[in-house]
Amino acid sequence: LGVPGVPELKPLTRYDAMRLGPGWSHSCHAMLYAPNPGMLFGRIPLRYAVLMQMRFDGLLGFPGGFVDRRYWSLEDEGPHRVVAHFYARQLTLEELHTIEISAVHSRDHGMEVMGMVRVPLYTQKDRMGGLPNFLANSFVGTAKFQLLFALKILNMVPEEKLAEAVAATLRPKKGAIDHGGGAAG
Amino acid sequence: LGVPGVPELKPLTRYDAMRLGPGWSHSCHAMLYAPNPGMLFGRIPLRYAVLMQMRFDGLLGFPGGFVDRRYWSLEDEGPHRVVAHFYARQLTLEELHTIEISAVHSRDHGMEVMGMVRVPLYTQKDRMGGLPNFLANSFVGTAKFQLLFALKILNMVPEEKLAEAVAATLRPKKGAIDHGGGAAG
Repeated sequence: LGVPGVPELKPLTRYDAMRLGPGWSHSCHAMLYAPNPGMLFGRIPLRYAVLMQMRFDGLLGFPGGFVDRRYWSLEDEGPHRVVAHFYARQLTLEELHTIEISAVHSRDHGMEVMGMVRVPLYTQKDRMGGLPNFLANSFVGTAKFQLLFALKILNMVPEEKLAEAVAATLRPKKGAIDHGGGAAG
Repeated sequence: LGVPGVPELKPLTRYDAMRLGPGWSHSCHAMLYAPNPGMLFGRIPLRYAVLMQMRFDGLLGFPGGFVDRRYWSLEDEGPHRVVAHFYARQLTLEELHTIEISAVHSRDHGMEVMGMVRVPLYTQKDRMGGLPNFLANSFVGTAKFQLLFALKILNMVPEEKLAEAVAATLRPKKGAIDHGGGAAG
């Protein structure tokens, strides 16, 4: 990615990935996204709606999974040699919204998937609100790098904004309480 | 809370909160929760479904907001002297699910709210999956403390599991890639 602090993914062709042999497990995940003409607060372009999900394990990831789970369970640590196939699929905003609606009605809702979320692609004027804060959440496996890779390759976030957002998450976190205040009521 | 590393909230009665005067802003947030008899992987009790939301700013929080936003906008830094009123409301699982469905159909969906998520209350056998990972996400304002406070006060998570989950998030994060692997496809 050429973003400080973020290791490069090692890209493989599909052809090479399929020739790796039986010692490798194959995961497939998809980034579903849709151009979004909306403006936040009437001023901040949303650009795209990008879907991720909060998983059962408390981590953010893309929808998908392992191709062959016969020999181990999601509960276990999983295989150590993983080829992460990653697909990006553009939809219309209406199609993406239909998927969000289906997801909340699905059998897995509240079990393996705790909810779908859209990724904020903008950065607010405080320089943390939006993508920088979002990247400071906890992600499974290669999901964060796949997200950054896709946002860069598909030119969904200006490159300097992407670099700034990544750099912001490398700084130590602010304390979680930034106001004096108590709990009442 | 008596959990190492977590500052105590300063509780106020509603009466005292209402007497603080004009220099204070009042925020109100609600934790909606429902007993959930489901088992993850047929084995891990889900205990309760607890709703939080991914906000426009990339942070997790509870539904709610400021009572008086006449003089400033969500885009701004906000007031510095905040009394955070916090309510917890028990629903049936069906009622909670209805709210999740309404949320994805609401006008704010994909704008101020990027999605609702349920909070995993269990801890998987790797000691990170579930609540510990979830607590390592990024939260707005006092939301993380309100969550922990409610889980403790309402006895929704065994106290030692809660302390272990908080302690786990105080350890430095593992690298985000724990498998060797590349991106293909």
